[in-house]
Amino acid sequence: MAEAKIIRADTLGEPNYDSPLKGQINRFYNGEAVACNDRTKDFADLESIDDIDYFELAGPREKLFFNPKNVTVGIVTCGGLCPGLNDVIRALTFCSLQSYGVKRVLGFKYGYEGLVAKYYHYPIELTTDNTDEIHEKGGTILKSSRGAQDTDEIINTLIHYGVDILFTIGGDGTQRGARDIVEGVKKRNLPIAVVGIPKTIDNDIDLIQRSFGFETAVEATWDIITNAHSEAKAYRNGVGLVNLMGRESGWIAASASLANSNVNFCLVPEVPFDLHGPNGFLQHLKTRLQNKEHAVVVVAEGAGQNLFDALLGTNKSGNKNLNDIGILLKNEINAYFKAENMEANVKYFDPSYNIRSRRANANDSMYCLRLGNNAVHAAMAGKTNMIVGLHHDRLIHLPIPMVGARKTIDPQSWFWQTVVQATHQPAQMANS
Amino acid sequence: MAEAKIIRADTLGEPNYDSPLKGQINRFYNGEAVACNDRTKDFADLESIDDIDYFELAGPREKLFFNPKNVTVGIVTCGGLCPGLNDVIRALTFCSLQSYGVKRVLGFKYGYEGLVAKYYHYPIELTTDNTDEIHEKGGTILKSSRGAQDTDEIINTLIHYGVDILFTIGGDGTQRGARDIVEGVKKRNLPIAVVGIPKTIDNDIDLIQRSFGFETAVEATWDIITNAHSEAKAYRNGVGLVNLMGRESGWIAASASLANSNVNFCLVPEVPFDLHGPNGFLQHLKTRLQNKEHAVVVVAEGAGQNLFDALLGTNKSGNKNLNDIGILLKNEINAYFKAENMEANVKYFDPSYNIRSRRANANDSMYCLRLGNNAVHAAMAGKTNMIVGLHHDRLIHLPIPMVGARKTIDPQSWFWQTVVQATHQPAQMANS
Amino acid sequence: MAEAKIIRADTLGEPNYDSPLKGQINRFYNGEAVACNDRTKDFADLESIDDIDYFELAGPREKLFFNPKNVTVGIVTCGGLCPGLNDVIRALTFCSLQSYGVKRVLGFKYGYEGLVAKYYHYPIELTTDNTDEIHEKGGTILKSSRGAQDTDEIINTLIHYGVDILFTIGGDGTQRGARDIVEGVKKRNLPIAVVGIPKTIDNDIDLIQRSFGFETAVEATWDIITNAHSEAKAYRNGVGLVNLMGRESGWIAASASLANSNVNFCLVPEVPFDLHGPNGFLQHLKTRLQNKEHAVVVVAEGAGQNLFDALLGTNKSGNKNLNDIGILLKNEINAYFKAENMEANVKYFDPSYNIRSRRANANDSMYCLRLGNNAVHAAMAGKTNMIVGLHHDRLIHLPIPMVGARKTIDPQSWFWQTVVQATHQPAQMANS
Amino acid sequence: MAEAKIIRADTLGEPNYDSPLKGQINRFYNGEAVACNDRTKDFADLESIDDIDYFELAGPREKLFFNPKNVTVGIVTCGGLCPGLNDVIRALTFCSLQSYGVKRVLGFKYGYEGLVAKYYHYPIELTTDNTDEIHEKGGTILKSSRGAQDTDEIINTLIHYGVDILFTIGGDGTQRGARDIVEGVKKRNLPIAVVGIPKTIDNDIDLIQRSFGFETAVEATWDIITNAHSEAKAYRNGVGLVNLMGRESGWIAASASLANSNVNFCLVPEVPFDLHGPNGFLQHLKTRLQNKEHAVVVVAEGAGQNLFDALLGTNKSGNKNLNDIGILLKNEINAYFKAENMEANVKYFDPSYNIRSRRANANDSMYCLRLGNNAVHAAMAGKTNMIVGLHHDRLIHLPIPMVGARKTIDPQSWFWQTVVQATHQPAQMANS
Repeated sequence: MAEAKIIRADTLGEPNYDSPLKGQINRFYNGEAVACNDRTKDFADLESIDDIDYFELAGPREKLFFNPKNVTVGIVTCGGLCPGLNDVIRALTFCSLQSYGVKRVLGFKYGYEGLVAKYYHYPIELTTDNTDEIHEKGGTILKSSRGAQDTDEIINTLIHYGVDILFTIGGDGTQRGARDIVEGVKKRNLPIAVVGIPKTIDNDIDLIQRSFGFETAVEATWDIITNAHSEAKAYRNGVGLVNLMGRESGWIAASASLANSNVNFCLVPEVPFDLHGPNGFLQHLKTRLQNKEHAVVVVAEGAGQNLFDALLGTNKSGNKNLNDIGILLKNEINAYFKAENMEANVKYFDPSYNIRSRRANANDSMYCLRLGNNAVHAAMAGKTNMIVGLHHDRLIHLPIPMVGARKTIDPQSWFWQTVVQATHQPAQMANS
Repeated sequence: MAEAKIIRADTLGEPNYDSPLKGQINRFYNGEAVACNDRTKDFADLESIDDIDYFELAGPREKLFFNPKNVTVGIVTCGGLCPGLNDVIRALTFCSLQSYGVKRVLGFKYGYEGLVAKYYHYPIELTTDNTDEIHEKGGTILKSSRGAQDTDEIINTLIHYGVDILFTIGGDGTQRGARDIVEGVKKRNLPIAVVGIPKTIDNDIDLIQRSFGFETAVEATWDIITNAHSEAKAYRNGVGLVNLMGRESGWIAASASLANSNVNFCLVPEVPFDLHGPNGFLQHLKTRLQNKEHAVVVVAEGAGQNLFDALLGTNKSGNKNLNDIGILLKNEINAYFKAENMEANVKYFDPSYNIRSRRANANDSMYCLRLGNNAVHAAMAGKTNMIVGLHHDRLIHLPIPMVGARKTIDPQSWFWQTVVQATHQPAQMANS
Repeated sequence: MAEAKIIRADTLGEPNYDSPLKGQINRFYNGEAVACNDRTKDFADLESIDDIDYFELAGPREKLFFNPKNVTVGIVTCGGLCPGLNDVIRALTFCSLQSYGVKRVLGFKYGYEGLVAKYYHYPIELTTDNTDEIHEKGGTILKSSRGAQDTDEIINTLIHYGVDILFTIGGDGTQRGARDIVEGVKKRNLPIAVVGIPKTIDNDIDLIQRSFGFETAVEATWDIITNAHSEAKAYRNGVGLVNLMGRESGWIAASASLANSNVNFCLVPEVPFDLHGPNGFLQHLKTRLQNKEHAVVVVAEGAGQNLFDALLGTNKSGNKNLNDIGILLKNEINAYFKAENMEANVKYFDPSYNIRSRRANANDSMYCLRLGNNAVHAAMAGKTNMIVGLHHDRLIHLPIPMVGARKTIDPQSWFWQTVVQATHQPAQMANS
Repeated sequence: MAEAKIIRADTLGEPNYDSPLKGQINRFYNGEAVACNDRTKDFADLESIDDIDYFELAGPREKLFFNPKNVTVGIVTCGGLCPGLNDVIRALTFCSLQSYGVKRVLGFKYGYEGLVAKYYHYPIELTTDNTDEIHEKGGTILKSSRGAQDTDEIINTLIHYGVDILFTIGGDGTQRGARDIVEGVKKRNLPIAVVGIPKTIDNDIDLIQRSFGFETAVEATWDIITNAHSEAKAYRNGVGLVNLMGRESGWIAASASLANSNVNFCLVPEVPFDLHGPNGFLQHLKTRLQNKEHAVVVVAEGAGQNLFDALLGTNKSGNKNLNDIGILLKNEINAYFKAENMEANVKYFDPSYNIRSRRANANDSMYCLRLGNNAVHAAMAGKTNMIVGLHHDRLIHLPIPMVGARKTIDPQSWFWQTVVQATHQPAQMANS
């Protein structure tokens, strides 16, 4: 049999220090391969199982690269809010200080800005006292910002504060920044580990089964959709229109539609649709209203971007707001039914900020704890240029260079077909 | 001493039937006067207590005008959603059928439209079975619509269905409609009682201490403001901007600000403010951001309407959206700080539909039960042209013609001063 | 006309200092009489209105007894937890420091123990920083204890720390202790004001319309009763038995039953009942189960205490646990249906600790803010030996010596009759 | 390479009918193997991957055994309540009627009792109308009962009503009953499929990653533990003692402790402990109280069963209640600190019924939908004697005979070590 391919995280060098956790558990996870990356194969052909990729399992290691008592840990949170940020910060802090006894933990403020001297955002020292109850609130105590910063300046800051391990909590851009830092420290030959905890409320990181905050977000939609349903039912041809997060993937919108059966139309980026024409969304909405007198429509913010080009063709103003599909739908629905001389009452819900700023639910809280702990385990063992995440229900190390691709809904998948069945929407709402 | 003035509800005539509730309680409330209407006096001068108005107490009466077993009750809900509508419908239905044993209860659908033949909205018969669990959901099972309908046609419908008692659940316009119906039936000499249950989530009916759904609405703002606070704190000069209900009064916004101490600015219709200038809102917001790096702003939808005139003067496009103070503030804040060359991150929350469509909380549920029961007690005794409501913590009968005035926040009152103290906002944000 | 009787709070002496709040509002509440104490009269006879009692209105005064900049404030919380304790502590602290600029605020820990030297509970200084977000959590940051302490030792502690104003947050016993302190300082001729904020989750203080935390408690019962209903309905002859707070009055149980219509039996201390016999509770429960196959029973912890005597007569073990009516009912129901050879599935809910330890809801939060602020206003003006509370929807000063009596449900009142109607339970479940 | 072992579900025979779902998705899951059963191997040795078991993937099949239009479906729910029961009933009903167009769906009431004639529980016909909103409430509309019934009588009932497919929603005993029915229908040569949806709020089915309702239960503990923490902190040596579900495994208690960091001791059935002695729980609790003055203890109901034997040895009364570990701990803690002459304030929380009776959260709702749909897909294809469940994040078919074993927490696992770290409790609390 051909040798199975095991994908391992980079390491800074030979781990030589005994872990303080050694002996606490019966066997350590010292790099065994784990659940396979079967995204293209679906196990249909067991003959080819030998060329499936395996990932390194996350977990504490017996030997550490760093001597804990000398280690300074840095943490930074970047990009938009997501439930669980404070849980991850807390787990990183507690595991570093309590399980490994590191020298100190520094929280850099306002994202990567906090790692660039000219912004004057001095870091704060994180302790078990000042992070003890932070997970009970949403947001991030380290604050955040968007955008990249100069890699060299970031590394200068790491050197200045003697940071040995940097944890980067953020999305795609953040992890690309982390990769740049890794390359920079390599060039300078610095023994600094960079480990990412991927953050995307949209749940769209390829290979990673679930990102923290996603389940909390889906849970938060339940009441909103129920309320949209109440609004819709209370008026003649009432339309409860709910705009949810999901820039390039519709996981939140689709999961929300499966979780709350009151949804009649679910529009996601992966499934283009037309507004007009005999098979367009508006015609189907009209039919629904004629039959039931009300409808609930859930739309991911990245859905229907094709519509803007069409509209921009006829409307040269190029209004930036047009890219807001929720507002576009609201206006188009109103215009359409006015033209049809049919009453319609659109009630618009845009709860995004109200969702992403809440605390993690219990399941996400647990997940954040595990992510934080295992990021520390990895970094202490000298792993770098990697993220931690769940894959086939196991925590693994995933090299950052593999993280680029986005996980999107396959319209041919049974997951999406279940959404189609649950909503009873047409499989296609496009005219061609 | 001069005789105290007792304000009583109209009555259809002499109540002659024994109430089935007679004997169930030790004494009946047969029209005693009750807690005084002291809105202008504040009891400062006890010498003048004799010219204070007293209202008739709500409650079951020993003698009824209607013979219950022959009575048909009609119910209609009008206008926007409000938590508790289903509770009121349920209470009216249960009290009519179970406490009095009326012949039947009809629910007219889609507001006053349901009382006009040409809309073809046939009424549904309400029973204890089909209303038993409706209070567990938001919305209104009778559906709603806005706007007046022809009074004669409404009365024709009442006659057609043999309705003896009509309960009108709705706001100002609805109760004006109810008054028109009363006048119409008087002219035609019809023994039909019309009793209103006033609905305004804004809590702005003069003389009425509290309208149903209001407390639920305030409760619902708590999490939203907490989340806006989390968003604001997470970004440099973050501004959590929360647009709440309150077209002509700021009770929800002000109460929300007292209930959740994270609010830094509370803007209400009763207290005009300027945007620009040395004492304008934007200057104060800037000062706050310079000191604290974040702010939470709560605005009632009817606040700052003066600003639109000023803006319309310079901007002739007359964009309809301009009347949305939330959007206006969002745009003006962004423009101002851009001009000031100062970063600001505005996060906009507009949860109105998500608030008004939820179920009543426990305290409102109880209140709706009491309102519904006492509306039935009043109507069965032949009272008409009135609403029920809480006044100095007692349920009273209030003649509809007295209902016109709006209860607004007095900027000189200690209530508003408490808001000013709690938020630490300037007492005035106007330049002149 | 005879002079109306105005009940005023004691005062330490002549208020001579200008209030820093002076000029901030248009008119100050300098002791006007207010909404009447009509508990026995019901306004039935307006002729006698002149002998009604009037209470002093709470609110800021233009003149203060204390010079704010020299004032040390003390705060203590006693007895069981109640939603809103932290809100009151926060309001007292903020109003003292920010509105009046007092010298310092001391929080005494573990109730009255914290005011007795031998317990070594040193007070903590309360600031706007360390109390800013305490209202977001349940419990009390000052901790609590039960029971009285020696008055002289308490006063020694007040003198030691230079406390000018003591705020006592607690129930009956606490306010009796406050009264004792007042008498003690009078004897020693000390200018110390003692103002109470009455705490009883049971809502049973006579003359006070509503105590803080009560509405939160009732709200908390909603889900529990709904869940008890789900349990009851799921099994043959399922009985959801919910034990709620209410040692000597049934306000929580009764209000919970009005707020959630799934309750079939509501048992309160004010309405004795028999278990056995043809008109006993168990017979009526049996009838209910025969008709509907399930029932929800809500019982206040102080209900049915008469039953223990009867049982003790036959059962000499005198088990202390027998005084737990919830457990007694659970056992008696099981025994009864076993004897009747009829299946019954009792599901027992005892959520008390889980209710009283939660944070205040929005409405209670607002109320706590007002209570705290007005307690400070009163004390700064030199008022003492009093509590603040809501009476006919206005905040008043109530002398502590008037506080003794308990507000209980009058079984003849229309409030209780509404409970009887809503639950459809028999008006009487006693055999004699 | 040796052939991988694929574990397939039994089938009634050759599927010959085209599925109405055929063509709706691009490829059907016709029995491919899937994520491996690696419970004992941990992928440590990739050489042996060929002898790993693979399970059949759940999903719709192109060919059906049953002709949908002739099919009668039966559903039964057994045992204790669990969040999501109504979701599963709804999914089974909707998928059967809408996706396959079966003739009818019958709901048998009160568990297996409903399948035995002598109980006179007639089945109800389930439709998309009468199940449309059932998932919004906890409990089970089909009601439940405990215990086995005679298999022959059950089969007689299936024959009487012409049931072709029986879905059994329940725990171990229920699925053993299902297996007996399968054997019975085999003997009688009846083409009846029996497919189980495993229910255990404790999440302790071996091979199944997660059972429905479990995440909802863990979520529900968050507030309770937070409240227990508030109670504990408010009193000197306050102990918040929370008794949670978990008869033979501690998944809920352990997950709750990971989700809410306020837990200081987590006691589960898998990790025995002593009460007394130098390394006993009480000594450690004392140390905690001496250091921190409060503690939160979470105990699974099945923990510490060893203690009862010891106690029974000295206490011959054999009180049945003694088996309640929560009550035992409460009493023992009180007795211990009384003997130690040290104040302790134990606040006891037993929320079990209040947890299991609530509605499913969003994530469980989605899971229930998928479980229900895939159970229908399997049964329509003629699969029988199997359950559906999640395994390594994929839905599989698992033969009922493989279901016996219980999934318990391995005290040597990193999961449990994380609990030990998070709580800071001793790894061992036993004296020997």
